[in-house]
Order: sequence, then structure tokens, then C-alpha cells
Amino acid sequence: MTNCSIDEFGLISRFFGNVGEFDESSFDSPVIPLGIGDDCAILRPPPDHEICLSIDTLVCGVHFPESITPYHLGYRSLAVSLSDLAAMGALPVAFTLALTLPESNVKWLADFSRGLSQLANQYQIRLVGGDTTKGPLTVSIQVHGLVPVDQALKRSGAQVGDLICVSGSLGAAGAALSVLHLEPEIDSASAGVRHLLEHYFRPQPKIELGCLLRGYATAAIDISDGLLADFNHIAESSKVGGVFYEEKIPCSDMLRSEVGSESLSIALTAGDDYELCFCLPECHYEQLKQNELFRTVSIIGVVSSELGLKMRHKDGSERILNPKGYTHF
Amino acid sequence: MTNCSIDEFGLISRFFGNVGEFDESSFDSPVIPLGIGDDCAILRPPPDHEICLSIDTLVCGVHFPESITPYHLGYRSLAVSLSDLAAMGALPVAFTLALTLPESNVKWLADFSRGLSQLANQYQIRLVGGDTTKGPLTVSIQVHGLVPVDQALKRSGAQVGDLICVSGSLGAAGAALSVLHLEPEIDSASAGVRHLLEHYFRPQPKIELGCLLRGYATAAIDISDGLLADFNHIAESSKVGGVFYEEKIPCSDMLRSEVGSESLSIALTAGDDYELCFCLPECHYEQLKQNELFRTVSIIGVVSSELGLKMRHKDGSERILNPKGYTHF
Repeated sequence: MTNCSIDEFGLISRFFGNVGEFDESSFDSPVIPLGIGDDCAILRPPPDHEICLSIDTLVCGVHFPESITPYHLGYRSLAVSLSDLAAMGALPVAFTLALTLPESNVKWLADFSRGLSQLANQYQIRLVGGDTTKGPLTVSIQVHGLVPVDQALKRSGAQVGDLICVSGSLGAAGAALSVLHLEPEIDSASAGVRHLLEHYFRPQPKIELGCLLRGYATAAIDISDGLLADFNHIAESSKVGGVFYEEKIPCSDMLRSEVGSESLSIALTAGDDYELCFCLPECHYEQLKQNELFRTVSIIGVVSSELGLKMRHKDGSERILNPKGYTHF
Repeated sequence: MTNCSIDEFGLISRFFGNVGEFDESSFDSPVIPLGIGDDCAILRPPPDHEICLSIDTLVCGVHFPESITPYHLGYRSLAVSLSDLAAMGALPVAFTLALTLPESNVKWLADFSRGLSQLANQYQIRLVGGDTTKGPLTVSIQVHGLVPVDQALKRSGAQVGDLICVSGSLGAAGAALSVLHLEPEIDSASAGVRHLLEHYFRPQPKIELGCLLRGYATAAIDISDGLLADFNHIAESSKVGGVFYEEKIPCSDMLRSEVGSESLSIALTAGDDYELCFCLPECHYEQLKQNELFRTVSIIGVVSSELGLKMRHKDGSERILNPKGYTHF
């Protein structure tokens, strides 16, 4: 491992200068008239578009285990931030990175950059600014995305009677952290554990689905704190409640086989999957379900006028849910 | 001192929810259709405007002394970031805050917020997003400003023959850190030390001057790393050199009286003053100097075709400068 002194400009240009710069046409993007290397970057949204932005900080030992590989840290840091754009129905265009490092380590930076670049290239987004400082390992990423004026998916628009929907399956990433021993060396783990760890280390932000939902969904949020806690943000913002159907909560088969009867509880309360939860007027469902992106979408409940959250069991009985936790009984 | 558990949403709404929200008219700003409290904030630049953005991270023990008061930390963190907007000629509109704290301390947060709010209110900018995490004390602030399309002041436009100008006087903030014992309790220090510490703890971003320079200056930068190092960024971006006039470098009287013969060296190499350095075609100078904002502006040199930096002494002799340092001999 090669160490060198921290030199912000050197690091940025060496490892991150080309992230998201694929070819001349994207480099000369009219949306980004000025990228990295000046006092500021400049974003110029196309006519009738606005800019969605969100910042997330990941601290070593708090938001990720010290044993995480730099590749996975780079990947996950950007994925987590992009997920906020997905939840607004915004198309990502650029991000900034504030990286605090205990020391400047060339191999570490190269691996971190590889994780970051993989996702940046997938969504064709460009690193437009950054700040590299010396200190305890911390990653702050702010993402910027475009959305047509007044079409962003907010938390506040849910209407009574809307279907509560969720993409994918829930709980795998949470199970990786809370139930299983964390094994950052994915390759040496069993297939089941590997599946769970992959969900934790490489969440897939649901950008395409978010964009598809524009003009249809009345509210959306990405699941970072757990389904109940996050839907509760929608409920409070929209001044509505929600009833969930117990048997419709999507737990993956792998989660069930790894954690058994705990899987529902984990699916309801574990974050880190970064799936989308959204509210959809029933009239749009038939049309949207034709779309390939809706293949993994489940209807898991209905928006109610009665405030608070409830679980409806298969036998028709209901019980009140605490959005901060779920106990199985 | 009251401690409570870290609760991101609680903290943000309690201490920062109102920063920059002065009255209903600014709350409903068409530039900020959505502020804090959703997955993203939304910025909508007016027609023919673009958004300048810059992120800065301040780490405890690296960028500020552990003894700093939370008030000064809040003030300085935002000032440093706003200075990057000043250097682009951008008008600040919004900022995001990623705050990492060892513990949630109500008094600390209230004081930090007071420092932040003072500057936010002065420039009428709004906190539009944030992330509060547990960990070693670190402040990342990203600022967003508006500039008419194609009028941002970049580093790359300096032309041979332009006047090299600087605002204010240099070195006071650097002297506070490097020469004097750091005394965060400003009130108990001598008048001279207080003057220097005030420059360090409460730098004034040169927003109005930056906006005035649009359409006149060919290049600009804020002085965060020292005059020589920062002008060198302009020189390299613009593929030019610079000749400085030794007797024109503005050291404040207070700096001279506190550090004597070291004052020129400090003025050339110390950062942290956050004055503006800019290049101005001579033809614009007479007009601009009528403006009150130009009262403190000094002409300190001239842009040259010969690459590199030089110091011209009063007797007409010249010597080559190392942009990374200046030794007095």
C-alpha cells in the first residue's frame, strides 16, 4: 500500500476527475457548463425543469462497518444518495463528494473510486465538485437531479383510497446487518449470506421506477429507515393513515430461509434496502403494471382517512402498528 | 448543559428549520419551491440563470481548533462556503448542512445555529436540506447561488495586461492562527489580537463585490489558501503569469503592529481571510472605483504572458516567487 501526503487537488484530479465523464458529448453537457476545478461548479437545468438535491453523510463505525471494502463504500455512498432522487422521480445529473480520510492511501482511493465510478457510469452522472480533508473516515455526497417543473414526487400528496405500493422485497439488507454476522468478504460467504450482503453493500437506487411514477404516484419515499417509519413520513406529511395487508409484505425467499419467523418484522422495520414506497390512485394501476419496471411492485395496503398505521391480518382482524417498531405475536 | 439522544429529524426541525426563513414572502420563494423535510429539496432558477454550487468540509482539530465556540463554528462554516459563491459572482439562495456530532447537546446546537442563522439572515439564504449524524465533529456545507447565464467569474479568463486586484487587507486571519496563541475567548484578548481573531472566526464573504464584478472581471478566486497559491490557480487555468508589486500588497496596520516584519510573508501565504483576488481589464477600473464596494480594492500587480509568478520590488528589481511559500530576504 502506497501512502502519500494529503493533497486535495492532486487526489481529486487523479482519482475522481474522470468519474462520470464518458465521452466528449457528456463532458460538454449543456446541463453542466462548468464541472470540477473552479470555486464552484455550475448547473443549468433545461427550460421547464428544476433541480432536486439531497445530501447524505456516512460515518465509519456508525453507517458502515470499519471492515467495509473501499469499493463497497464508494458504491454504497453514492447509491444511498441517488435513492433520494429516485424517491422524487428525478433524473440524476451530477454529484459532489466531501471525503474525509485519516490518511491519503493510493490503493484505498483507487478502490473507492472504482465503486463510485461504477454507479456514476451506470447513471451517466458527473462528479462536479468536492473537498478532500484529513480526519476520521466520513463520506458526504450531495446528488442533483432534474425533474420537470411541478412533477416531483413529494411526501405530502397521498390521498385516501390510494394503493400503498412497494418495489422489490424488503429486509435483506437489514438482515445482513442485524441478524447475521457481517462478512465484508462477500466472496467467501454462503450463497444465502452473499445474497443478503449484496443487498446491503450494493443497493440499487430505483431511478427508472421513480421517473416512471411521475404524474401517477401521489407521494413517494425511499425506504432507508424501514417501511413503517418511512411510510409514516408520507402519512404525516399527507395527513392520512395507512392499513397494511400482512400477507402482502414482500419478504424475499432468501430472507425467510435465513431468518425464518423474524422475516416479517425485519421487512417492516429494517432500512437499507432503498426500495421505493409510494401511493398510487387505483385507476393508474392497470396501466402501469404493463410496464416491465412494475414487475416487482407489490400492493401492500391502502391509504386511510383514519390517522396512524394498522396491520390487517389474513382473517380480517386489525391491530395498531407502532411506526418505530414491529413485534411479532 | 442538556443532552438528549440524537434524533435527526427532531434536531433539524428544532434548531435549523427556520434558518433563513424570514417571512412568508421568502418562504414561498419561487426559487425554492420545496425546502427541508422531503427526500430532496428543489431549486428552480429564474429564466436565464444557472446555479453555482460548492461544498466545503471543516473537521475539528484540522480546520478549526477544538476550543472554537459553537457560535463561531456555525458562522465560519457558512462564511467559508459563501466565499466560493462570491468568487463566482453568484448570489446565494440556499445551503445544505451535513453535521456530524459526537453527541446531541441542546445548548451546543442552539449556539451553532445562532452563528449559522446570523449569516443566513444577512444574505437571506435558506437551509434546504441536511443530515445529522453521530461521529467526530465535522461540518459540511454546500451552498447554492444564482448567476445570469454565462456571467459566472471563472478562474480561466485572465488576459495578459489585466490588473491583478485584491479586496481588503491580507494576513490577519492567518496571523491569528500561525503567529499568535489562539484565544477563542475573543472578549478577553487585547484589541490587536481581537482584531486578528475576528478576521479568523468571522470572515466576511465578499458577495456584493463578486456580483459587482460580473461582466467586468476576467477571472476571480477567493483567498482561502493564500494569495500566491490562489492567484496561481488563476494563472494556471488562464495559462498566464503574474507580476506583483511588493509595496502594494495590503497588510493591515494591526497585522504590522502585531507581527512586524513577518507581515508581508503572512499576507502572501496565509489563507483564511476570504478576500477576493481578481483580474480586471484596465479600461474598467476608473468606472468601478467610483463604487463604494471598490473602496478597499487594491491593484497589486499585472497579468503577464510569461508563466509563473514574480515579485517586483520598489527599486524595479524582480524575483521569482514560489506559489507555495514566500521567504522574506
